[in-house]
Amino acid sequence: MPRYRLDIEYDGGPFKGWQSQQNGPSVQDAIERAVERFCGQNVRLAAAGRTDTGVHATGQVAHVDLDRAWPERTVMEALNAHLVPAPVTILKATQVSEDFHARFSATGRRYLYRILNGRPAPALDRGRVWWIKKRLDVAAMAEAARALTGRHDFTTFRDAQCQAQSPVKTLDVADITSVGEEVRLTFAARSFLHRQVRSMTGSLVEVGLGRWTVGDLADALAATDRSRCGTVAPAEGLYLTGILYD
Amino acid sequence: MPRYRLDIEYDGGPFKGWQSQQNGPSVQDAIERAVERFCGQNVRLAAAGRTDTGVHATGQVAHVDLDRAWPERTVMEALNAHLVPAPVTILKATQVSEDFHARFSATGRRYLYRILNGRPAPALDRGRVWWIKKRLDVAAMAEAARALTGRHDFTTFRDAQCQAQSPVKTLDVADITSVGEEVRLTFAARSFLHRQVRSMTGSLVEVGLGRWTVGDLADALAATDRSRCGTVAPAEGLYLTGILYD
Repeated sequence: MPRYRLDIEYDGGPFKGWQSQQNGPSVQDAIERAVERFCGQNVRLAAAGRTDTGVHATGQVAHVDLDRAWPERTVMEALNAHLVPAPVTILKATQVSEDFHARFSATGRRYLYRILNGRPAPALDRGRVWWIKKRLDVAAMAEAARALTGRHDFTTFRDAQCQAQSPVKTLDVADITSVGEEVRLTFAARSFLHRQVRSMTGSLVEVGLGRWTVGDLADALAATDRSRCGTVAPAEGLYLTGILYD
Repeated sequence: MPRYRLDIEYDGGPFKGWQSQQNGPSVQDAIERAVERFCGQNVRLAAAGRTDTGVHATGQVAHVDLDRAWPERTVMEALNAHLVPAPVTILKATQVSEDFHARFSATGRRYLYRILNGRPAPALDRGRVWWIKKRLDVAAMAEAARALTGRHDFTTFRDAQCQAQSPVKTLDVADITSVGEEVRLTFAARSFLHRQVRSMTGSLVEVGLGRWTVGDLADALAATDRSRCGTVAPAEGLYLTGILYD
């Protein structure tokens, strides 16, 4: 069966996350329904990142096996037509070999966290950013973030529901920059623990607000104790922006 | 009476434009209602740009006279509190002299038009951009735009409903640039005719799509004939981004 890689953008707002479930609409359900309307097949999609309720994506990747070899453009356009009006877009459909697996072949994941800072609440970017009125000390946040990169036991920044076998991960990138009225945090790693990005972001914001010192963040990491995590950042500022394959 | 200048951001989507009217909610109504809830005053706001149905603003300016001299911060925060949940934000409230008039003192207006180009429909920027699937020739658009700057009779790009006394305006800026997947058009002038920006944008898109030559745009302008205007661009891509005062 021909396998297709799907590159996907979505507004996480109306969804209970990527993964199919009982208690509400999921992005996975929306795309699986579009596949069924397109070619009558009942499929299960595998995705690289199982984003939580309300988390957005500009670069999610999934794969699907179809009964016949449709032109790539047809797959993309037909799925997009059947996805209307859901805020989900197939950016690209690419035929790949059968040993490509969206989740297991992935060698890197990249997230962006957007904070709107030091101004009144957003009218236009509502639901797209975490609004923090008080001005953040971005230099302190950037300094604190350095403690996070490299190989660590990230138990402090791991949700209680996390099902990963090990809390040890290697964080390759933890960059923080000011862009206009926004503070943007970029994280990259082979893989992340459940809610790791939002947990790290919330803790970095404690530093930005002056409630934690730069050293407090390193201490919280070293404690490998979930109760030492700062406020978990809200879903609405988080974007899965890209998946890396070799 | 102390006069306040209000700098305002809004999502035009849910509104029938800036100006108060019978057939639906307006941004002006929303702010006037917030003023009444704040201090009990029944006021009329004057704004620099009377944006149409669905047009957004990141830099609208209005003024209001209040009965007493509230601290600027109090005015901003109280109005924002009373504006919830409308997607309208007072970015700044500044006490100004009584000869400041948001509309009549303005010496320049600036608009941004955002086109999402050459990719599938937006999931995240829906309602915020004009989506044009076919790749635009941005260089041709930029060349054509040069014919628009300067002092001209803009009858071709003027809505039939326009109430301006003269169709002659001086366009100071007509810049077109590619930024990632977007084509961004920036226009600045002392003032604009009704729907002038959307009319010019739609006509520039005719050039970008190859349906018009660069010369066709100059000819359409020179014809001073409304029937020579291209498709008028939709409201959802347009932003009033700033007002200039001396």
